[in-house]
Amino acid sequence: MGQTITEQILDDHLVEGELTPGEEIGIEIDQVLTQDTTGTMVWLQFEALEMDEVQTELAAQYCDHQTYQFDFKNTDDHRFLRSASGTYGAYFSRPGNGICHQVHKENFAAPGKTLLGSDSHTPTPGGLGQLAIGAGGLDISVAMGGGAYYVEMPEIVNVRLEGELPEWATAKDIALHLLGELTVKGGVGKIFEYTGPGADSLSIPERTTITNLGTELGATSSIFGTDEKTKEWLAKQDREEEYVELTPDEDAEYADTITVDLDELEPLIACPSMPDKVVPVREVAGTDVEQVIIGSCTNGAYEDILPGAKMLEGREVAKHTEMIVAPGSKQASEMLAREGWTAEMMAAGVNFSEATCGACIGIGHVPASDSVSLRTFNRNFEGRSGIEDDSVYLCSPEVATAAAIAGEIVDPRDLADELGDLEAPGLEMGTAYSPGMGRNDSDIITPEEAIDDELIKGPNIGDVPLRGALEGDIGGEALLKMEDNITTDHIIPATADILKFRSNIDKLSEFTLSRVDDTFAERARAADGGVLVAAENYGQGSSREHAALCPMYLGIEAVFAQSFARIHKANLFNFGIVPLAIDAETYDRIEEGDDLQIAEDVGTAVTSGVEEFTVSVNDGEWEFTADLDASDREREILASGGKLSWVKAQHDDGSDAAPADD
Amino acid sequence: MGQTITEQILDDHLVEGELTPGEEIGIEIDQVLTQDTTGTMVWLQFEALEMDEVQTELAAQYCDHQTYQFDFKNTDDHRFLRSASGTYGAYFSRPGNGICHQVHKENFAAPGKTLLGSDSHTPTPGGLGQLAIGAGGLDISVAMGGGAYYVEMPEIVNVRLEGELPEWATAKDIALHLLGELTVKGGVGKIFEYTGPGADSLSIPERTTITNLGTELGATSSIFGTDEKTKEWLAKQDREEEYVELTPDEDAEYADTITVDLDELEPLIACPSMPDKVVPVREVAGTDVEQVIIGSCTNGAYEDILPGAKMLEGREVAKHTEMIVAPGSKQASEMLAREGWTAEMMAAGVNFSEATCGACIGIGHVPASDSVSLRTFNRNFEGRSGIEDDSVYLCSPEVATAAAIAGEIVDPRDLADELGDLEAPGLEMGTAYSPGMGRNDSDIITPEEAIDDELIKGPNIGDVPLRGALEGDIGGEALLKMEDNITTDHIIPATADILKFRSNIDKLSEFTLSRVDDTFAERARAADGGVLVAAENYGQGSSREHAALCPMYLGIEAVFAQSFARIHKANLFNFGIVPLAIDAETYDRIEEGDDLQIAEDVGTAVTSGVEEFTVSVNDGEWEFTADLDASDREREILASGGKLSWVKAQHDDGSDAAPADD
Repeated sequence: MGQTITEQILDDHLVEGELTPGEEIGIEIDQVLTQDTTGTMVWLQFEALEMDEVQTELAAQYCDHQTYQFDFKNTDDHRFLRSASGTYGAYFSRPGNGICHQVHKENFAAPGKTLLGSDSHTPTPGGLGQLAIGAGGLDISVAMGGGAYYVEMPEIVNVRLEGELPEWATAKDIALHLLGELTVKGGVGKIFEYTGPGADSLSIPERTTITNLGTELGATSSIFGTDEKTKEWLAKQDREEEYVELTPDEDAEYADTITVDLDELEPLIACPSMPDKVVPVREVAGTDVEQVIIGSCTNGAYEDILPGAKMLEGREVAKHTEMIVAPGSKQASEMLAREGWTAEMMAAGVNFSEATCGACIGIGHVPASDSVSLRTFNRNFEGRSGIEDDSVYLCSPEVATAAAIAGEIVDPRDLADELGDLEAPGLEMGTAYSPGMGRNDSDIITPEEAIDDELIKGPNIGDVPLRGALEGDIGGEALLKMEDNITTDHIIPATADILKFRSNIDKLSEFTLSRVDDTFAERARAADGGVLVAAENYGQGSSREHAALCPMYLGIEAVFAQSFARIHKANLFNFGIVPLAIDAETYDRIEEGDDLQIAEDVGTAVTSGVEEFTVSVNDGEWEFTADLDASDREREILASGGKLSWVKAQHDDGSDAAPADD
Repeated sequence: MGQTITEQILDDHLVEGELTPGEEIGIEIDQVLTQDTTGTMVWLQFEALEMDEVQTELAAQYCDHQTYQFDFKNTDDHRFLRSASGTYGAYFSRPGNGICHQVHKENFAAPGKTLLGSDSHTPTPGGLGQLAIGAGGLDISVAMGGGAYYVEMPEIVNVRLEGELPEWATAKDIALHLLGELTVKGGVGKIFEYTGPGADSLSIPERTTITNLGTELGATSSIFGTDEKTKEWLAKQDREEEYVELTPDEDAEYADTITVDLDELEPLIACPSMPDKVVPVREVAGTDVEQVIIGSCTNGAYEDILPGAKMLEGREVAKHTEMIVAPGSKQASEMLAREGWTAEMMAAGVNFSEATCGACIGIGHVPASDSVSLRTFNRNFEGRSGIEDDSVYLCSPEVATAAAIAGEIVDPRDLADELGDLEAPGLEMGTAYSPGMGRNDSDIITPEEAIDDELIKGPNIGDVPLRGALEGDIGGEALLKMEDNITTDHIIPATADILKFRSNIDKLSEFTLSRVDDTFAERARAADGGVLVAAENYGQGSSREHAALCPMYLGIEAVFAQSFARIHKANLFNFGIVPLAIDAETYDRIEEGDDLQIAEDVGTAVTSGVEEFTVSVNDGEWEFTADLDASDREREILASGGKLSWVKAQHDDGSDAAPADD
């Protein structure tokens, strides 16, 4: 039977299991990436594993989330990461050099390779034919040590793009269309493969915008095949030799096919506060806009910013609207500056920022209260911008720029009609990059150039907390009962004042679930253990393992939810918290404050493969059944009290799952 | 008798008093400026004065300190400031447009005019022949309302510059040389007038670097005469018509003359942690440098950044050193981008920031712990960079760039010898500006373009608290007994987490004296009034009026101290708190918790000129005498319950001291 592109790559990297959807497979990882808010924990865990050197073909450490360095803790983290990169043999990208996904795409992403990254938007270089997956930091540590990455074999879904994008509709609108159709849960357990003439018509930056946004669908990854466009793009980055042709076999079989007719698309916008609340721009036209931001790993490439620059030529940003451009990489910044676009945008009233994730995670340019912000980012979860009750819309750079000019939301087609001389900027490729010119690597320190050979830890960089082996007795007070779609931002907010404690779990844990209930952390500490209850899709959003680490640190033993987001569920296993599925009826019946005790000896039951657990409520008032859906490996990890303990044990056994000896 | 330039300008603007050093004079103010951390209170007070419109020729509101907007409170403040500017008729400079002093210099500063600004570096445009003075927010509100500004007539000191700067020595080195010679107290009660052939040889940006740094000498202001260079510079800003010739009369008499031979100067550097700890760069050469920042109101002009850009051409920033360039204005940013320098600097590894005060006040790019930072700023007070025990050096852009290239402190002359091909960049004028081109005013909203006609107050923007006319009965519990040298940082800390409440006195007052006793604010509220007791030099440090406003808000009626710092004592008058001097014996005898009641009817006694007050302790247990040392004007202010109430009363009288009718 023929293979999809995903299957071809997985087959090449398979070290355990079979490519049957739902079954766990172990794959070899060629490249890893990590960033500054997840990276410190990755390296602290790498150190705890007693590894000497990175074992993957390539490891890259980026500093992109906290580049404003509001606190010495951020700057200390960056220095620690530089020292870890030097000590263990990773590439180090300096703060200000840009967002991991954009810089990785420019410098390292290669078709046919596997990439594991401790950031949920790691699938971005899928647009170049790389199979890239986001994972928790501990998985990255293990992969860097040479261990396989384990994941449930996803279903491969063909997204067939027909036709071509009409004027003013963009790659962002393709992704927004899919989000509107499929919702933020539509991709769970799936990898989307983009095919068809519409896919062929897209440039590499357009493709990576789509693969980046696949994360918002909940997908494990998203990927395009490769072609002449891929080759040309790599050549412009001086990396033509890394080109590999990738197409699905003619008789490849997909689990499902979704067809999108690009000709039918129009400018779309995601309304507050979920990326799948998508409507045509015209439906919300006329809404006053106080802030517009272009940038992020979704739309931060040179080609993403260029359309806005062209639209602004000879025009001005509306006086009551602030427009900020934060390029995704310094390469993008440098090219825009070199070609004169930066000066033009500044003249038009744009505030040009460092290359940073920044505002996308609520760090800087927090909107004013009761104001509307339009952003080209990938997420608009409530509060993520740094203010409660925010009104953040997500759209293409073209729609964002149109709003900046008009001072209100407007379909760029209507603005063009009104202004008379506003042309659709289109997408210019080829003028931007030229071999050797476009690549900016002064900010990347290679392993050969390493300047540190030991770890430099500032006073805020703590230890890795560990949980002991799983006990028989699991349960406790339901400390919090939550709704659907609790995000990792709810669990551990990513705003600047909290993010600076990412390397300091004792302090960070004080903010656990504070967005849901700001008494939670205190109550959890006082209760000395307990459980959480949630509805559907618990833990959606980012890959941050702190969302499992901090509840673990506070003594949470189990999470009962109707369903779990993929990466977060893996993180729960990794940190020794038991993820148990319950049905809607049970969910409805449990009340916050109830005492939930698992009847079985959980330590033994988990390893012996028990799938159904009986839970007694309030000392036998009533009971329910909760399901543990876990692979043998996950069960072992859970029983060991988390992955770190488990890997160390495996390492002593010399198993494949463990980091290789060096 | 002939006049100095300062006397000529003061004479033109005098509304009260005589130009005799030490005597109080009242002067008319032509222009005012304010920024985002002091501006909200300026406008709230302007509102409380019930003014309808700005009465000065020009008022300009800048957003420069908190432009990263890392909290919605910052963004709300910016929106409030925009709305106040629109409502009352001020120019509004949007966040990202640059630092008040640089943008004001570019757009508004005019020779012969008076400028009052609520920022200590307001004297910067002295380099253009403007008499510019920094003052507290309430003084700005009053001046904006048309009221005179009262100040003790300073001594005028002639700083005669002979010769010309040798290669690699800069205007910054002139200022650092003076700081080394005169110390940070050397300018107190003085205005420095720069004359001589050395002064004539300097460009406008060089002159404004020197006048900016006059603040570090403690000077009231610093000023240069005007000449062809001034005229040319104004012409390049499209403002040639604002040129006025200003030279001291031939028989002008100065209180003192200081001569500096520029030929003798060499690259200098101020060591941690005071701007007057100046040594030749060679004395500290070889010190490892982790961070270099070029920018600030001292060295943030196009001409300040250009030398560094030239030095970096074809070179790279040392891999272990982070170099950040934060231009002083968007005009500077735009010109650097337009001429290709931005792209060159980025290629060399520079992280290009928004135009902001930022790092200079500890907001962003906080150094790592135990690391050295070289900055072209004006202050390196301990902890100001955002981390305790910092090691911040101050130097010229040339010295900073040399360090960025070498990764350690190095005299650029020695680096040039070592590299062989590093030329002194010199100062290029004339290529940068051209009429109409260089000026960026898309980010300035003129009063005519105003988009708001009422104040927009976010939830963090409170009211100005007012105290009623001084009552007869003054006294209460001694809520706190403090030691010598309590600073304004002890009274109201200035860290970013507290700074964001500068517009919210109710919230800010919770931090009052928290550095001395963190139960104080709560106790003061509960006590519903009381008094403070301190030893020598109470209130030393900054001019921040919040250090009087917050105690007033908490109900403090009097401060008994052995002595008071001058500016803080004025602030106590301004906010209706009675400052009473006590002797050491009395200080020793008073105990925290004692009840102190003034026997006299204080309301009447203050205005009738009583200097000695009898204070009864614990209902007559014992008594002591306390002295009130105050001018007639200060007594009137105190009796009115503070300056705001006093100005309103004066306003009704039509006095010169009060804002004009509109």
